Amino acid sequence: MTVIDALAGRLRAALGPDLVVTDRQELRTYECDGLAHYKVIPALVVLPQTTEQVAAVVRACVDCEIPFVARGSGTGLSGGALPHADGVLIVTAQMRRILAVAPADERAVVQPGVINLQVTRAAAPHGYYYAPDPSSQQICSIGGNVAENSGGAHCLKYGFTTNHVTGLEVVTPDGEVVRLGGGRALDPPGYDLLGAFVGSEGTLGVATEVTVRLTAVPESVRTLLAAFHGIDQAGAATSAIIAAGVVPAAVEMMDALAIEAAESAVACGYPPGAAAVLIVELDGPAAEVAAQFDEVTRLCGANGAFEIRIAADDAERQLFWKGRKSAFAAVGRISPDYIVQDGVIPRTALPEVLRRIDELAAANGVRVANVFHAGDGNLHPLVLFDDAIEGAAARAEVASAAILDLCIEYGGSITGEHGVGADKAKHMPRMFTDDDLDTMQLLRCAFDPGGLANPGKIFPTPRLCGERPGRRQAGDNRWPGVEVF
Amino acid sequence: MTVIDALAGRLRAALGPDLVVTDRQELRTYECDGLAHYKVIPALVVLPQTTEQVAAVVRACVDCEIPFVARGSGTGLSGGALPHADGVLIVTAQMRRILAVAPADERAVVQPGVINLQVTRAAAPHGYYYAPDPSSQQICSIGGNVAENSGGAHCLKYGFTTNHVTGLEVVTPDGEVVRLGGGRALDPPGYDLLGAFVGSEGTLGVATEVTVRLTAVPESVRTLLAAFHGIDQAGAATSAIIAAGVVPAAVEMMDALAIEAAESAVACGYPPGAAAVLIVELDGPAAEVAAQFDEVTRLCGANGAFEIRIAADDAERQLFWKGRKSAFAAVGRISPDYIVQDGVIPRTALPEVLRRIDELAAANGVRVANVFHAGDGNLHPLVLFDDAIEGAAARAEVASAAILDLCIEYGGSITGEHGVGADKAKHMPRMFTDDDLDTMQLLRCAFDPGGLANPGKIFPTPRLCGERPGRRQAGDNRWPGVEVF
Repeated sequence: MTVIDALAGRLRAALGPDLVVTDRQELRTYECDGLAHYKVIPALVVLPQTTEQVAAVVRACVDCEIPFVARGSGTGLSGGALPHADGVLIVTAQMRRILAVAPADERAVVQPGVINLQVTRAAAPHGYYYAPDPSSQQICSIGGNVAENSGGAHCLKYGFTTNHVTGLEVVTPDGEVVRLGGGRALDPPGYDLLGAFVGSEGTLGVATEVTVRLTAVPESVRTLLAAFHGIDQAGAATSAIIAAGVVPAAVEMMDALAIEAAESAVACGYPPGAAAVLIVELDGPAAEVAAQFDEVTRLCGANGAFEIRIAADDAERQLFWKGRKSAFAAVGRISPDYIVQDGVIPRTALPEVLRRIDELAAANGVRVANVFHAGDGNLHPLVLFDDAIEGAAARAEVASAAILDLCIEYGGSITGEHGVGADKAKHMPRMFTDDDLDTMQLLRCAFDPGGLANPGKIFPTPRLCGERPGRRQAGDNRWPGVEVF
Repeated sequence: MTVIDALAGRLRAALGPDLVVTDRQELRTYECDGLAHYKVIPALVVLPQTTEQVAAVVRACVDCEIPFVARGSGTGLSGGALPHADGVLIVTAQMRRILAVAPADERAVVQPGVINLQVTRAAAPHGYYYAPDPSSQQICSIGGNVAENSGGAHCLKYGFTTNHVTGLEVVTPDGEVVRLGGGRALDPPGYDLLGAFVGSEGTLGVATEVTVRLTAVPESVRTLLAAFHGIDQAGAATSAIIAAGVVPAAVEMMDALAIEAAESAVACGYPPGAAAVLIVELDGPAAEVAAQFDEVTRLCGANGAFEIRIAADDAERQLFWKGRKSAFAAVGRISPDYIVQDGVIPRTALPEVLRRIDELAAANGVRVANVFHAGDGNLHPLVLFDDAIEGAAARAEVASAAILDLCIEYGGSITGEHGVGADKAKHMPRMFTDDDLDTMQLLRCAFDPGGLANPGKIFPTPRLCGERPGRRQAGDNRWPGVEVF
């Protein structure tokens, strides 16, 4: 009997036979997440329904030295929920209860498998919603959002998942159940382990209960679409809006190629001849929105917008967003294959970086469509290629990686909201020094000395936790009397 | 020659003789921070001017196994900068340069000894300011704010220090220099070590450079003072304002005894006969503030305010705040001695907890003046006593500790903004389970296995980092092949 067979038996006894999947065909269902070109079939899948069951699974994995990976809805774009071939995949799809909605404390408490949009639906009768809005919000899970610190178009004003999670119940990598954060009250004392856990991509444990902040539904929402003849002008308008002290709910930008793709897919009717469009949305008290909306309109005009449309009603507002929201899928209409990149730059560097991306595209013989959260400086360049043409995929990869180098060169980051996962671990040394990475590994090894929690993600070269990183060498005991590890 | 003498020699060689203090009388200057009833004279004080000098001091301490404590301006109220009798105190007072002010990226970069208010002064010509505003903002340092995750009256709307620090250069407890956070761009990938560092009270290293967010100066500020015949009404008004979706810049409350003290000290002229006053301040675009201010005024009236004053100009606004800001010092006029407590409860529990505090005060024969950030649920009860009366101090201590128990009972916290430091380490087990505390210690031990960085703070029982906490016993090796520690 293999170790996996023994483990499967132990888990069936603990969870019941229906919650443990061992059939090869069924296992194949879980072979990838949203980054579908990475595929690994897990050795076992479990579908726990309670915190105690998750803890039992983790303890069994630790006893058998088997890696484990948690998965929500599997919509992530960095391969963070990519299974381990010799490991257990912990799927939270059966942990979908909303445990509390408490509008007077502006909080909800949910299980990790709850879908992002369900939180908003539960809070809506009280005049509240859950602010972070990944494009996948109709299907992605809160647990997955916690793991990847997910963003969305409206995170410019409202912040990322980490700004909306105020408490967690977590199963640590040794199977203990602990609580992090203040929940319904202000932050508790001690280290901000809650903050460190959000965005840790499954490497510090499995969240089993999540307390989230609820946000009051704004009295008013107003949206405009501004078209520009040059992308520099759209970038300058974005900087001018922020420098004026206005914080829109969203500032989204699309370039000519992205607009072309969106038009061909959903006929959104953006102004013809636009080299770039900005979608700017303001929300808040009606009086505030009215005052600031005038200012934003003025700044778009002053920075060269040749057409500004103001959504007259919710239907027109949805039409503005339709083009933006369909953009990723729409590029399939103009290119057989594409890579979605995710990088960040300081907002003020936008025009210059976009010019350099153009040069990179030309030099590598690929086309790049740019769709991005301009207010955040969070770029989503789509590198288009045709896999049927020999060498095209490789050139696209080169261009895509070069865009990340650009982001780093301008003081930005290799990911804004999709995470590092399996996909970008190799890029981490381009952004961080050895000392920086060693310092992160101190945290990982403290929580997971056995290296069983989602191994192979985030870090390019997993360190054996027995060795202490840094300048120290074996035998170089700088703390006599304390065991150096 | 003692170890300290040898260390002093090494530090004089590294920093120059003027930056190393060994004279007993001079050392006494540093014996306490703002929590003055804890006093410890350090063995040595250093006054480094550069990151390299801080790193040299830490490495020298590590080599000699000597503890080190960092100190900014020494205004903390939890004894977080209390020196170690056998250790080095690293004073950042000579690291006071503002390295950059970058309004287009909404950031400033400063050395840790820079005074909080100096950041605002440097940003003001650009229309920006630094939002976190501890009462001590005229003298407290940014480095100290980072260590304690300092708050202030306006943190209700703007968040605490952790929400305004976007990058750090840090000397780790083994003397390495690393960078945490994104600085001028969005958060980088990897663990949020920046978030974990802010508020770690000097136990994870010494910050040597701080990148902070700048906030646009609001177009309009409006302030009202509402007087109530009962403190329950003031609490209900606070909850009603928040539940209406308004987020004021500040909602401050004072009870009758605090008002009495403030009147006797600064004659602030609050409405006679008030059992409680609320100060509510709104800021933002003029149009927003005007709309919301009407709503707040209405809600105060609807919840029983018998007098509402609206500040006609900045002078009247300053007068409203004068009473509030002088409240701590003012209780000296009505009581020879007092303890400033700092606890947190969910906002909705305010009226009930205040009633229970009254009962506790009566039961222990002390008076309690309540001054607090009502919008946050952050209480600052002042427990008044006369040390000349035998047993009075002990009864005050009992009442003060019982207030913290109340906070925990209602799902709150033992500190809102003053930190744990030396003062509240003993209370941590009342709030956290052993598993919770062990999980925090994993982080501390990962960064500081020698236990030299500000030992004795935060944790009630420092753990030997050689032993792995939790249920595991020596010899209970659950990861064969991996050295268990």
